[in-house]
Amino acid sequence: MKNFIDLTEDLDLHKLVQEAQTLKKDPYAHEALGKRKVLGLLFFNPSLRTRLSTQKAAKLLGMEVMVMNFSSEAWAIEYEDGTVMSGLRSEHIREAAQVVSQYCDIVAIRAFASLTDQEKDESEIVLRSFQKYASVPIVNMESATAHPLQAVADAITLKEHWPSHKPKIVLSWAPHPKALPHAVANSFVKMMASQEADFVITHPKGYELDEKITKGVPIVYDQEEALKNADFVYVKNWASYQDYGKILRTDDQWMLTRKKLEATNHAKFMHCLPIRRNVVVSDDVMNHESSLVIKQANNRTYAAQAVLKRILDNE
Amino acid sequence: MKNFIDLTEDLDLHKLVQEAQTLKKDPYAHEALGKRKVLGLLFFNPSLRTRLSTQKAAKLLGMEVMVMNFSSEAWAIEYEDGTVMSGLRSEHIREAAQVVSQYCDIVAIRAFASLTDQEKDESEIVLRSFQKYASVPIVNMESATAHPLQAVADAITLKEHWPSHKPKIVLSWAPHPKALPHAVANSFVKMMASQEADFVITHPKGYELDEKITKGVPIVYDQEEALKNADFVYVKNWASYQDYGKILRTDDQWMLTRKKLEATNHAKFMHCLPIRRNVVVSDDVMNHESSLVIKQANNRTYAAQAVLKRILDNE
Amino acid sequence: MKNFIDLTEDLDLHKLVQEAQTLKKDPYAHEALGKRKVLGLLFFNPSLRTRLSTQKAAKLLGMEVMVMNFSSEAWAIEYEDGTVMSGLRSEHIREAAQVVSQYCDIVAIRAFASLTDQEKDESEIVLRSFQKYASVPIVNMESATAHPLQAVADAITLKEHWPSHKPKIVLSWAPHPKALPHAVANSFVKMMASQEADFVITHPKGYELDEKITKGVPIVYDQEEALKNADFVYVKNWASYQDYGKILRTDDQWMLTRKKLEATNHAKFMHCLPIRRNVVVSDDVMNHESSLVIKQANNRTYAAQAVLKRILDNE
Repeated sequence: MKNFIDLTEDLDLHKLVQEAQTLKKDPYAHEALGKRKVLGLLFFNPSLRTRLSTQKAAKLLGMEVMVMNFSSEAWAIEYEDGTVMSGLRSEHIREAAQVVSQYCDIVAIRAFASLTDQEKDESEIVLRSFQKYASVPIVNMESATAHPLQAVADAITLKEHWPSHKPKIVLSWAPHPKALPHAVANSFVKMMASQEADFVITHPKGYELDEKITKGVPIVYDQEEALKNADFVYVKNWASYQDYGKILRTDDQWMLTRKKLEATNHAKFMHCLPIRRNVVVSDDVMNHESSLVIKQANNRTYAAQAVLKRILDNE
Repeated sequence: MKNFIDLTEDLDLHKLVQEAQTLKKDPYAHEALGKRKVLGLLFFNPSLRTRLSTQKAAKLLGMEVMVMNFSSEAWAIEYEDGTVMSGLRSEHIREAAQVVSQYCDIVAIRAFASLTDQEKDESEIVLRSFQKYASVPIVNMESATAHPLQAVADAITLKEHWPSHKPKIVLSWAPHPKALPHAVANSFVKMMASQEADFVITHPKGYELDEKITKGVPIVYDQEEALKNADFVYVKNWASYQDYGKILRTDDQWMLTRKKLEATNHAKFMHCLPIRRNVVVSDDVMNHESSLVIKQANNRTYAAQAVLKRILDNE
Repeated sequence: MKNFIDLTEDLDLHKLVQEAQTLKKDPYAHEALGKRKVLGLLFFNPSLRTRLSTQKAAKLLGMEVMVMNFSSEAWAIEYEDGTVMSGLRSEHIREAAQVVSQYCDIVAIRAFASLTDQEKDESEIVLRSFQKYASVPIVNMESATAHPLQAVADAITLKEHWPSHKPKIVLSWAPHPKALPHAVANSFVKMMASQEADFVITHPKGYELDEKITKGVPIVYDQEEALKNADFVYVKNWASYQDYGKILRTDDQWMLTRKKLEATNHAKFMHCLPIRRNVVVSDDVMNHESSLVIKQANNRTYAAQAVLKRILDNE
């Protein structure tokens, strides 16, 4: 693997999940692989799971890690070409990316969507600019439109709980007081494309995701209808995509509750975390044994480890 | 040792101090013990000594370390159960603690007292919540009411300078422009309970510490009287406990000076640092050879190493 | 080497550059040298290159690294002796330096010029105070008046591109919207003192550097004149030294352009980075193959490695 930017067909997700599961059984089996290799983690946004699980994955492979909170510890970055840099930004991505490449063997980057400039967000200006100018592999730790490490962890978690029948899997929008990006939902939808499942998306009208991504996936505007017979319910808030970055409603009608889950086929509950209890989902869902959220977080380590291993193996 | 939350009888402090002293003589003797183990350091407050000495201690044991400034690098944490999380806090401690546990073998936490909400502070909501939901051992790097790593370092330092006679040891309050927590003083008092010494606390009226902790220790309101024949003077500011978190006086009457020390039995001077010179204590005390503050800071490494070793040994 | 504070004659720069070049060919040759040694990196200012290249250099030598953003993660430091510390500063450098020394084998420090208090800046109060009270070697990662690690990297880069004839090397001031320190320019001038080259400094009137440093170096106030026949052009902005810390002009007359470079002897372009494109230098210079800026940044690793190796070797 050269870079890990998004879920693509090349990736062979099923093989990657298998590799992650093999690593999970014996995490230190490839401890020598990363010897003398340095992973740089560049954060433009907060991070708990990604920060720790990716570091952990690197250490399991024997790599050294250098962590930088880019926004606060380094210089503000200019991404546009040809600008007169007389404002607040004191370093251009062309230099920053080339320079960082020289100190690291792999560079992983987190840079959320602005949710104010759709064009810039869709161009993945931060991640793609690093990729363009870097001379080493780039790993996406959540970009404006995609969170593929989360989707790989979700695929591992789904596989660990896969039923004997073809399951019904529902991605349900949920309310949230702040405008959140589409990255996790997008990557979940892309990941589902390779799963043998009945996959349905449910959300209020106006919350349609990018149809280039959801094309062909049934969208049900009635949450109760969508949840019927579900085996897995993946809950996530996102801001409006059409009315880009806007919050259209904050009432609690779409909050997932235990009562709603009782109308499913004993559905497992999934979420990427962090999650706001009693806003996105009620306590009785979070505290129920059917919640897989802690397991998903644990699988972040092995998702990252499988990705880093492939890059180190140059396979 | 399962967790290191506070000084308890189970701890066998004298044995722990001995273990630390053995480590100090040959710090790398157990370099293989921590191999493949990860220590997570979570900071909710500033830290110099604790940050560096605990990292150092882990490295002496061969552990990997992941450091997080939780407040600035991750998500704001909700500690109350049952709340509707529609405000500023985006992750609940139940998830945060379980998740972090999965990436670390030991988690150490610093979370100071608010000094505004006595009930919350006394419930040790941050540390206890992590302990409650974590699946790995928790180490206290200074909580609302206790700083046991400091107390162990102090016990080592006392032992290194213990006189041939039964010493008199004085804990003296000192002025400070900001309201400071009771944690260091509390832990020093608890530590002293197992020392064969004449122990006296001195402070102005109104600065009585929690009497559940000081029970049985003589309190002298006249500093001059208290310092007579002292062999060690441990100085520390704290805010009022009764009038919780309030500063009752800021004049310099209680500042420790060389002149005051000259009336003692050549007393050694101790403080946990950081210290405000010429406010808490005068320069002539700080610069005098009888000051043990730098040695105390050095012993923080071996205090932490002894604690981590016990946890790794699961003894 | 005991400390690395500034470029001095003792240093034998040519030998240090040779050592760095040897390390560059086989960076892991001395991986055992730094075993069980800890490098502390203390940042009082932002850093990208220095932060990552110095960490990388330490890891190449097998050292452990502890990074601290001192201003945000620890306590505000008092540097003056004898003050009553009742203000914002809660720890004195005397304690901070001694304490940090006990946890580290080498301490590296970045502390920029204030550009408001010339006397303090020239006294190098932060770096010199750490050096005074520390018990371990101190490395300068850019202080108020010097950036010697950058100058060593520049010397390596110059050597790698040294022509067969005695070259002309020009240090040219360039415009910048913010007041910048003199450290990089000072260290470049000092480094040039040991180079067999025709060295010229060019800047507008009023931008003369400290003449104790530039003594004997020709200063040309006409940039066009200065650039004639140049083989290397090192560009850097700095604020006025005489009218300390002031910006005297911000027009683009002194911005380096490709057109200006075409009047040179195919001059190579150098800069320490970060650089503001189309303010300090035009895109056509930055994007031209004659730019050495990325190579300079790469050589930061080997400059730091050579310095750390000398300290570890105690040579």
